[in-house]
Amino acid sequence: LAKIILALDAMGGDIGPKITVPAAIATLNKHPHVDLILVGKKDILAPLCSKYPSLLDKRLFIHHADQIVEMNDQPAQTLRNKKQSSMRIAVELVKAKTAHAMVSAGNTGALMAISRFVLKTIEGIDRPAIIARLPANNTRGFVHLLDLGANVDSTADQLLQFAIMGMVMAKAIDGIQSPRMALLNNGKETIKGNELVRQASQKLNDHPVINYVGFVEGDQIFKDIADVIVCDGFVGNIALKFGEGIVRLSLKVTRSVFEQNMFTKLIGFLSQPLLNRVARLCNPSKYNGASFIGLKGMVVKSHGNADMKGFAIAIDRCIAAVENNVVGSIAQQISDLLDLNAL
Amino acid sequence: LAKIILALDAMGGDIGPKITVPAAIATLNKHPHVDLILVGKKDILAPLCSKYPSLLDKRLFIHHADQIVEMNDQPAQTLRNKKQSSMRIAVELVKAKTAHAMVSAGNTGALMAISRFVLKTIEGIDRPAIIARLPANNTRGFVHLLDLGANVDSTADQLLQFAIMGMVMAKAIDGIQSPRMALLNNGKETIKGNELVRQASQKLNDHPVINYVGFVEGDQIFKDIADVIVCDGFVGNIALKFGEGIVRLSLKVTRSVFEQNMFTKLIGFLSQPLLNRVARLCNPSKYNGASFIGLKGMVVKSHGNADMKGFAIAIDRCIAAVENNVVGSIAQQISDLLDLNAL
Repeated sequence: LAKIILALDAMGGDIGPKITVPAAIATLNKHPHVDLILVGKKDILAPLCSKYPSLLDKRLFIHHADQIVEMNDQPAQTLRNKKQSSMRIAVELVKAKTAHAMVSAGNTGALMAISRFVLKTIEGIDRPAIIARLPANNTRGFVHLLDLGANVDSTADQLLQFAIMGMVMAKAIDGIQSPRMALLNNGKETIKGNELVRQASQKLNDHPVINYVGFVEGDQIFKDIADVIVCDGFVGNIALKFGEGIVRLSLKVTRSVFEQNMFTKLIGFLSQPLLNRVARLCNPSKYNGASFIGLKGMVVKSHGNADMKGFAIAIDRCIAAVENNVVGSIAQQISDLLDLNAL
Repeated sequence: LAKIILALDAMGGDIGPKITVPAAIATLNKHPHVDLILVGKKDILAPLCSKYPSLLDKRLFIHHADQIVEMNDQPAQTLRNKKQSSMRIAVELVKAKTAHAMVSAGNTGALMAISRFVLKTIEGIDRPAIIARLPANNTRGFVHLLDLGANVDSTADQLLQFAIMGMVMAKAIDGIQSPRMALLNNGKETIKGNELVRQASQKLNDHPVINYVGFVEGDQIFKDIADVIVCDGFVGNIALKFGEGIVRLSLKVTRSVFEQNMFTKLIGFLSQPLLNRVARLCNPSKYNGASFIGLKGMVVKSHGNADMKGFAIAIDRCIAAVENNVVGSIAQQISDLLDLNAL
């Protein structure tokens, strides 16, 4: 396997280095062909890494960055005032081709703004999108949904671009020959939907390569109907967070239901590890590692409160994207499409 | 208490009379001031009702209807071809003021089309909306969300109308003096959102009566931030169904997790009643009884696969709406608003 070098925003996320460094070590142990650059405050990272002399400065490198992007920093201010942040410098390393891709658990809006500004979009793509895997009741166990909030007020052409990018992801990473593509809608029937999805439906249907299967409703995402589902980022973001909220409420209610009496407390105690597993499997936004696609470089966003395991999964996702040349494949597919339109 | 007469679409829903008739009986036993008209096939309903001679033809009446609206009937065809359906006739009874309001567990699209056509919208309301209670982590245990799918491509003025209707509902039925009103968005910050919500935000903010608290994100619906949350029906429908899908997937995953071995099966067996309770409390679309508001008559929609208890809750919701004169209050509030605008 060819060598892969990733930059990690070591300071990002709710917890930061205490999560990112152990996840980096786990990744290096698991993938011998991967090197990692930890970007962040050297005085914090060096002591954490010194325990691994066999890796440090051989496969694990520290790249100092003075600033940290906070979770509530505004994207525009971050762009202007945090040029020395771990997040910004990690993205710059991708731009400079020092790293093949980067991973961050930091502020999503800031990461998107920096990624767009530094990496730029692929020719023929108007706007990057956020794509993630959601748990689903199919053999693979997941489905791709995009856009999850990078864009609002998308046009039908942009939804078509999202579909092409999603198709490339599912093909390249999951090896699905002809991914089933659907549009998220408030009904299955062709007469349903707003102006936008009806226009987009026409475009997806007319496309020579996309395997378009039509509309799906919100609850059908989790069934075995489509491999990739496209929506505007406004809808995708709200639906995803709605699901996250319901799962969190269910856990809270579950806890209180099990608190009733001694007997229910005992059952609760016994069920705990099993229910934790359910929560992990079903939390839509913890299925870790959302990718920003449509940029001239790969950026993977881990959930802000991901634990070590979650952040390591996001890194794995990033490695898979690099190995399968997702960025190059999207560029090729879009360029083919532009040629086609030019005929 | 003044006498209340409700019409029930006795044939509607996945199960029909076997659910609707027992729910009607339970309602009559619970509410001495309520009479019910069961609309549907007499040959099916009469034998089910004959067991209750003390109620039949005294407080429980059968109104024959020849046709049934099926769950997959198209709204437009239903309007044209099912004028003798139990659903249509129950709505006609409200129009004729024979009944104060009606409840159906039937096809939502058909019920909305019939309700709009027969009852018409209140003066000053462009389009009716679907409002429902979602489970929430506040003292009341729920929050109102609208529109849940009656409208797509709403305008900012229509969202304002939805807000006014939601405010009236929360005031009249729940006795909340000044309901906290929020708009569903993909971020809390004022710079977030699509064109529509930003325009609507301005209008809600400028309104003299609405207690507008700003934007809420999808997962914040379930927190104690707002009493009424407004969105376009496209978004509301998708988010609600997304949540429904996640809950259903979680139940499926829970079952399989508990199937691992003898020990986990035992824990599963012991937890079952508690987990069923959690599922009932947290399923966003089973919190039964969505109301169609903005019409010159009250229509309550029960979930299609509601059980007897669920359908009875929908009837209770309908009784509360009639007792608190929701239709009249909305008309009054909207008329005041129109007067205000005319100044």
